Amino acid sequence: MSETVSLAADIVDQLAEISTATLTMQLIKRGIRRSWIAGTRPLFAGTPRVAGEAYTLRFLPMREDISTRESYARAGSLREAIEAFPAGAVAVIDARGEQGCATLGDILAARLKARGCAGVVSDGPMRDVAELRDVGLPVFCSGVAAPPSIAGLHYIDCQLPVGCGGVAVFPGDVVVADEDGAVVVPRALAAEIAADAPEQERYERFAQMRVAQGEPVLGLYPPGEAAQAAYARWLAAGEPDDWRG
Amino acid sequence: MSETVSLAADIVDQLAEISTATLTMQLIKRGIRRSWIAGTRPLFAGTPRVAGEAYTLRFLPMREDISTRESYARAGSLREAIEAFPAGAVAVIDARGEQGCATLGDILAARLKARGCAGVVSDGPMRDVAELRDVGLPVFCSGVAAPPSIAGLHYIDCQLPVGCGGVAVFPGDVVVADEDGAVVVPRALAAEIAADAPEQERYERFAQMRVAQGEPVLGLYPPGEAAQAAYARWLAAGEPDDWRG
Amino acid sequence: MSETVSLAADIVDQLAEISTATLTMQLIKRGIRRSWIAGTRPLFAGTPRVAGEAYTLRFLPMREDISTRESYARAGSLREAIEAFPAGAVAVIDARGEQGCATLGDILAARLKARGCAGVVSDGPMRDVAELRDVGLPVFCSGVAAPPSIAGLHYIDCQLPVGCGGVAVFPGDVVVADEDGAVVVPRALAAEIAADAPEQERYERFAQMRVAQGEPVLGLYPPGEAAQAAYARWLAAGEPDDWRG
Amino acid sequence: MSETVSLAADIVDQLAEISTATLTMQLIKRGIRRSWIAGTRPLFAGTPRVAGEAYTLRFLPMREDISTRESYARAGSLREAIEAFPAGAVAVIDARGEQGCATLGDILAARLKARGCAGVVSDGPMRDVAELRDVGLPVFCSGVAAPPSIAGLHYIDCQLPVGCGGVAVFPGDVVVADEDGAVVVPRALAAEIAADAPEQERYERFAQMRVAQGEPVLGLYPPGEAAQAAYARWLAAGEPDDWRG
Amino acid sequence: MSETVSLAADIVDQLAEISTATLTMQLIKRGIRRSWIAGTRPLFAGTPRVAGEAYTLRFLPMREDISTRESYARAGSLREAIEAFPAGAVAVIDARGEQGCATLGDILAARLKARGCAGVVSDGPMRDVAELRDVGLPVFCSGVAAPPSIAGLHYIDCQLPVGCGGVAVFPGDVVVADEDGAVVVPRALAAEIAADAPEQERYERFAQMRVAQGEPVLGLYPPGEAAQAAYARWLAAGEPDDWRG
Amino acid sequence: MSETVSLAADIVDQLAEISTATLTMQLIKRGIRRSWIAGTRPLFAGTPRVAGEAYTLRFLPMREDISTRESYARAGSLREAIEAFPAGAVAVIDARGEQGCATLGDILAARLKARGCAGVVSDGPMRDVAELRDVGLPVFCSGVAAPPSIAGLHYIDCQLPVGCGGVAVFPGDVVVADEDGAVVVPRALAAEIAADAPEQERYERFAQMRVAQGEPVLGLYPPGEAAQAAYARWLAAGEPDDWRG
Repeated sequence: MSETVSLAADIVDQLAEISTATLTMQLIKRGIRRSWIAGTRPLFAGTPRVAGEAYTLRFLPMREDISTRESYARAGSLREAIEAFPAGAVAVIDARGEQGCATLGDILAARLKARGCAGVVSDGPMRDVAELRDVGLPVFCSGVAAPPSIAGLHYIDCQLPVGCGGVAVFPGDVVVADEDGAVVVPRALAAEIAADAPEQERYERFAQMRVAQGEPVLGLYPPGEAAQAAYARWLAAGEPDDWRG
Repeated sequence: MSETVSLAADIVDQLAEISTATLTMQLIKRGIRRSWIAGTRPLFAGTPRVAGEAYTLRFLPMREDISTRESYARAGSLREAIEAFPAGAVAVIDARGEQGCATLGDILAARLKARGCAGVVSDGPMRDVAELRDVGLPVFCSGVAAPPSIAGLHYIDCQLPVGCGGVAVFPGDVVVADEDGAVVVPRALAAEIAADAPEQERYERFAQMRVAQGEPVLGLYPPGEAAQAAYARWLAAGEPDDWRG
Repeated sequence: MSETVSLAADIVDQLAEISTATLTMQLIKRGIRRSWIAGTRPLFAGTPRVAGEAYTLRFLPMREDISTRESYARAGSLREAIEAFPAGAVAVIDARGEQGCATLGDILAARLKARGCAGVVSDGPMRDVAELRDVGLPVFCSGVAAPPSIAGLHYIDCQLPVGCGGVAVFPGDVVVADEDGAVVVPRALAAEIAADAPEQERYERFAQMRVAQGEPVLGLYPPGEAAQAAYARWLAAGEPDDWRG
Repeated sequence: MSETVSLAADIVDQLAEISTATLTMQLIKRGIRRSWIAGTRPLFAGTPRVAGEAYTLRFLPMREDISTRESYARAGSLREAIEAFPAGAVAVIDARGEQGCATLGDILAARLKARGCAGVVSDGPMRDVAELRDVGLPVFCSGVAAPPSIAGLHYIDCQLPVGCGGVAVFPGDVVVADEDGAVVVPRALAAEIAADAPEQERYERFAQMRVAQGEPVLGLYPPGEAAQAAYARWLAAGEPDDWRG
Repeated sequence: MSETVSLAADIVDQLAEISTATLTMQLIKRGIRRSWIAGTRPLFAGTPRVAGEAYTLRFLPMREDISTRESYARAGSLREAIEAFPAGAVAVIDARGEQGCATLGDILAARLKARGCAGVVSDGPMRDVAELRDVGLPVFCSGVAAPPSIAGLHYIDCQLPVGCGGVAVFPGDVVVADEDGAVVVPRALAAEIAADAPEQERYERFAQMRVAQGEPVLGLYPPGEAAQAAYARWLAAGEPDDWRG
Repeated sequence: MSETVSLAADIVDQLAEISTATLTMQLIKRGIRRSWIAGTRPLFAGTPRVAGEAYTLRFLPMREDISTRESYARAGSLREAIEAFPAGAVAVIDARGEQGCATLGDILAARLKARGCAGVVSDGPMRDVAELRDVGLPVFCSGVAAPPSIAGLHYIDCQLPVGCGGVAVFPGDVVVADEDGAVVVPRALAAEIAADAPEQERYERFAQMRVAQGEPVLGLYPPGEAAQAAYARWLAAGEPDDWRG
C-alpha cells in the first residue's frame, strides 16, 4: 500500500490533468469516501494545480523539554528531511490539525522549492506569509499563524504513513490539489483512476454545454438513455463546442 | 409561519435594498436574536446582494446503503427539486454544517441559474469552484470541498422547514444576503421590516456623515435629543451630503 | 505587568518594524509560547502592519435583560470607552471567541479612527464590512457577522486585563499585527525584544539570500560555525545583496 | 427504504438480543460504517437494552417568534406526536446536536412510557433528571440540561427521515441501544443481520473463552484454520464452558 | 444589575427550593433564554442542591511570564479572594471554558468550605478529585484535570461581572444548581421569580400525577380549560396525592 | 528521549505512589506545562491507579481500501503488537482523538491483561464495555463507542513516538494515571521527579491538616516563613495527625 507498488512514469502527469472533484467521485466509485484532506486550501489566490507522490513529514504535539530551538539542528531534524526531499514529490505534513503555530516558514519553503518540491499540503498553518508569497511554492494549508512550529508542534520523522486532514496518506500515494482542495489517490488505484477519469470529465463537459443550452439536468446528469445517445453523437462529431443533438 | 402568509409583490424588492446588518437590528427590535445564518459567506469576491423567498433543500447525514451514485437519478432526487425551482427564489440548503463534502457543483448551479434562482445559501461547501466562478450564480456558503454530496450527505426532500447555519428557515421566509452574510426574515415580519428599515438606514447615513465630520458617537449613535433635532433639520433640508447642524 | 511599567517612547516604533513571526520566536526564547492571538487575521487584503499599546475592551456573553438597544447609551457604555480612546493605541477586544455577532461596525470604527486608534484586534467578527472597507482603520478579527453585538455579547468595561484569542492581554502591553496575525509583547519585555529582534531578522535575510543562491538549510538555519563565519563576513562587507562568502 | 419494507414480527426481538458492537460489525460487512448514533449514551446506570422501530421526532433551531410557550399547545405540537406514539417503537429525536436545552422532561417521558414507548434515543440532552430517574423509561441521550426545548430548539414534525448523532434514521429502521450506545439498522437489512449476527457472537464467546485460557489472539481473532477447527469441535461438543480443543 | 439591588433575606432560601428546570422556564417567561451555565454538572453523585449569591472569580488564559508558582502568593492572588469569601455565597469561576487544567484543588476547596462557601460553579475542571470527594463542598464543574491552574490559566481578579458557561454572571446574582446543572437568576428578577415559581411547580406535580394515572398530555401540559378546572378542584381539596377530578 | 535512557528498576514503583496532580506540578517546575493526556478518564468507577513505561500503538484515520476486516489478520497488525506486549508496560493508544469508533474491545483487552499489561491509556473510546468491566484491565480513555476501530481508524504501527490527548509520548516514557487522568513523565526526568515529589505531597498533607484545623491558606499554601517553621516542627515531631504548631 505504499512505495513498493510500482507506478508508471506518466501516471502522475495524467492525474495532474484531473480535477480533485473528479478524483473524489472516481474514488467513491471504488468505495472510498475519505480521500479529501479536510481544511486544506490554497494559501494564495492563483496557486496552480499540484500533483505528485506524497513525501510525508510527521509532527507530534510540542513538549517543552524537547521542542526547543536547539531541536532545529539535531540529527533527524526537519532540515535533514528537507535536504533529502526528492524532486517532483509533494510534501504532506501531518500537523494533527494544530492551528496555533506554523508548519513551515519562508526559508524552508524556499529550500523545498529549490529541491524541486512540487508543492506542500499541510493540515496546519504557514508563517512568513508575506515572504512566502514571493517564494512561489504552491502551498495548500489550513491558514496562517505567526509562531514557529515549536510553539505547538514537534517534528518527529518523515516517510512514515501519516494522517492529514482526516485521511490516511502513505508515502508514494499520489496527492493532487487544486482550488477545491487536496485529495489522496491510493498508489494502488492511481493507474486505473488515471485511465477512467478523463471519460468522466469528458461527459461533464458535454453536460455543462447542454445545461448552458437550456437543457434540464434530469436525465442528463447522470445521463439517461437519450442523453447517452446524444453524447455518443457528440463524441462521434468530434466534441464540437456548439453541437446540438 | 410559512407560505400561507401572503406577501405583497414588492416586499422582497424593498428588502433587497436593506443591508443584513440593518435587518438583524430590526429583528432584535422584535425580539429575534437568531436570524443570521452562521458560517455562510460569499463564495467569491464581488458576489452581488441577493434577496428572495426561501426554497428549502434538506440533506441528512450520508448512509452508505442509500447515498450512492444511483440515488442521483431516483424519484425525489435533488435533480427533481431543481427542475421545480421557482424563478426568483433563494435556494436554502440545510447541510447540517457538514464540511467534508459539497452541496452543489457547477452543473447543478448552472441549471439553478437557468431556472431563475436568485442565489444559493448553504451551511455546507461547494465544489467545482473554478467552474462555478464562471456560472455567475450568487453563492453564500461555508467554503469549498472537492467531494460530491454523497461522500457525507444524503439529499432527502425540499420545501420543508429546515435549519441552516443555526437558524430555522421556513419555505417562503425572505432570505437576504450580502457581504456580511445571510439573514432570514420571517415571512410574517417581512412587510413591517421592509417599512421600518429604511428609516434606520437613513439615520445611520446621517450618523456616518457626522462622525466623518468629527462628531463623537456619544449622544449621536444612538441619538440623544440634540442629535434627533439635528437629524430632523437634516431631513427637512433634503438630506444634503455636507450638511452641518 | 501593565501600564505601571514605563515604556520608552520609541519602543513601539521599533517593534512596529519587526514581523510577528520574529516576535513570536523572540518570545519563545524567553519562555513564552502563548503570545499569538489565535483566529485573528486582517479583515481586508492590503491591511497595513499595526503596532501600539493595548487598550482593552471586554465583552461578556449577552443576557437578554441587559443586552438591549438601550444599553448602547447607558453610563459606562462602549461609546464612552471609545470617546476616551488614546491616540496611538490598539483596541484589543475580548469577545470570548463569540462568532455569531459583531464587535464593531462602521460608525464606531470610523470614530475610533478619528480618535487616532492605530488599529483593532478582536477575537470576534466585524459588521458593515462594505462600509468598513472605506473607513480605513486596520482591523484584525475573526471574520464577519451581520448582527450587532447585543445579539450575542454584552459590553462590560475597558482597560482591565482580558483574554483575546487564547492569550492574556494587559492594558499597556504592546500589540503588533501583520499578515501573519496579531501578537502580544508583554510590556516588561518590550524593550529587550525591540533591541534583540533586528539581529534575528538580519540573519534571516542573510539565510534567505543564501537559500536563494542554492545553499542547503542544514547548518545555515539555524547557523553552524561556517554559516556564522560567512554571516560575519557579510556583515563586515556591509550586507551586500549579492554577496557570496 | 422505510416503513414500506415489511419486517417480520420477530426480527426486532431477535435484534434485541444482539449487542450494538456486533451490529456495527455486521453493518461494516455490508459496507455501512456510519450506523452508530454519536454522542448518545445511557442517561442512568443500569439502563436496560432497548430495541424497536424508529419513530422520529424532528427539531429545528429555536426562533424567538415561534418557539414560545404557546407553541407547546399548537396543532402539530410535540404533544400530538406523543399521543400518537405506537407501542413498542423507539423515539428517535433529531436535536441537531444542540446541547443548551433539553429535548424531553419528566412529564412527557412519563407519558411516552405510558403509551408503550420502548425507549428514547436523542442527540440532545434531557431535563428534570432527578424525576426522570423514577419514570423508568430507558433514555439514551447526550446529557442533561435544565432549560426547556424552546430555549434553543423548535419541535417541527414527526415520522420524517432525520439525522441523529451524525447518522440518517428513517421511520421504521430498527434502533438498538445498549451500554455501548445506539445503532441504526436499516430496515432493509434487519432480517439478514438478525440471521447472521448470532453466529458472530457465538464465535466471540468461544474466543473470549480461549483468551481466558491463555491463548494468543493471533490466529484466534479473527480465526485462522486451527481456530476454526477448534471452534467446530467446540460447537460439536455443545459449546461447553470449559472446553479445551 | 448587581449587588446594588437589595435582596430580601429569604429570597435565596425560597429559590433554593425551586428546581433549575423551573427557573429556566420562569426566565424564558421573562424573555431570558440564556441563563443555564453550559457544561457544568455535579462533580460527584449525590451532590446536594446549592443556592446563593454569586461571588465571582475570574481567570485569563495562562501566560508563561506571569502564571508562575510564585504568582500563587502575590498580592491579589486567588488565596486572598478565598480569605475574603463571604459565608453563604456561591463561587462562580470564569475559566473561559479551558479544559486542560483545574480551577480548584482539594486544599483551596477545603478552605472555601471552612469559610462557609455554599458551593462552587466553574466552567473549568477540578483536580485532586479523590481528596475533593472527602471535602464535602458541593462542586458543579466541567470535569476533572490533573494540572494546576497555571498550566493553562491565570487568576486575575474577583467580584467583577464574568462569563461562565456562556452566560453573564454579575456579583450578587443568585445562582442555583442541582442535578440538571447551574442557572443564573438576575438579582433584579430574583424576588418575582421566587414568588411565581412555586405555582409552576405545584401545577407540574398535578400534571405528573395525572399522567401517572394515564391521562394524555394534550390539554394537560400546558393545561386547557378542563385541566385548569380539575387543577382548581385539586387545590381546593388540599392537593391530595391520589385525587381524581 | 526514549528507551535509550536507562531507568532504575524502582523508579516506576516510586512514581506509582505519586498523584497525577503532584506530577503535573513537578513538571511545571521543570518548564513542562503539557503533560496531561487530555480527554482521558477512568472508564469505570473504582479503576485503580496505574503506572508503567509507555508502549505506544498508533492509529491513522480509516481508509476504506485498507481498513478492512481482513486487515485484522495482516502482518504488522494490532494483534501482533499485542502478542509482543511487555509485562508491566502501559499501552498508550494514539487515536488522534477520533470519537466515532473504539480502539479496543473486550477480547484484545483480555489478552493484554493476560500478557501483563499494567493498563491502557487511549484518547479514543472503548467498546464491549459491559464485558470489558469484567476483564479487570485498568482503562483510561475518552469514552465508549460501539463500532470497531475500522469504522474510523486504521492501526498502523507500534513503539514509535505518538501524540495522545494533545501530548507527545515516546516509548519508554513513564505514564501514570489515576482519577484525575493520565500524565506523561518524560523518561529523562523520571528519576528526579520520583525523588522530589514525595516532599511536595508531604507538605500538602500538612497543609490539608492545617486547613482542616481552620487555618487560612494565605501564607500556608504556598508556605510563608511561619508555615515553613511549623512544618519543620511537624516533621521533627514525626508527622503526627493531630499536631498543632
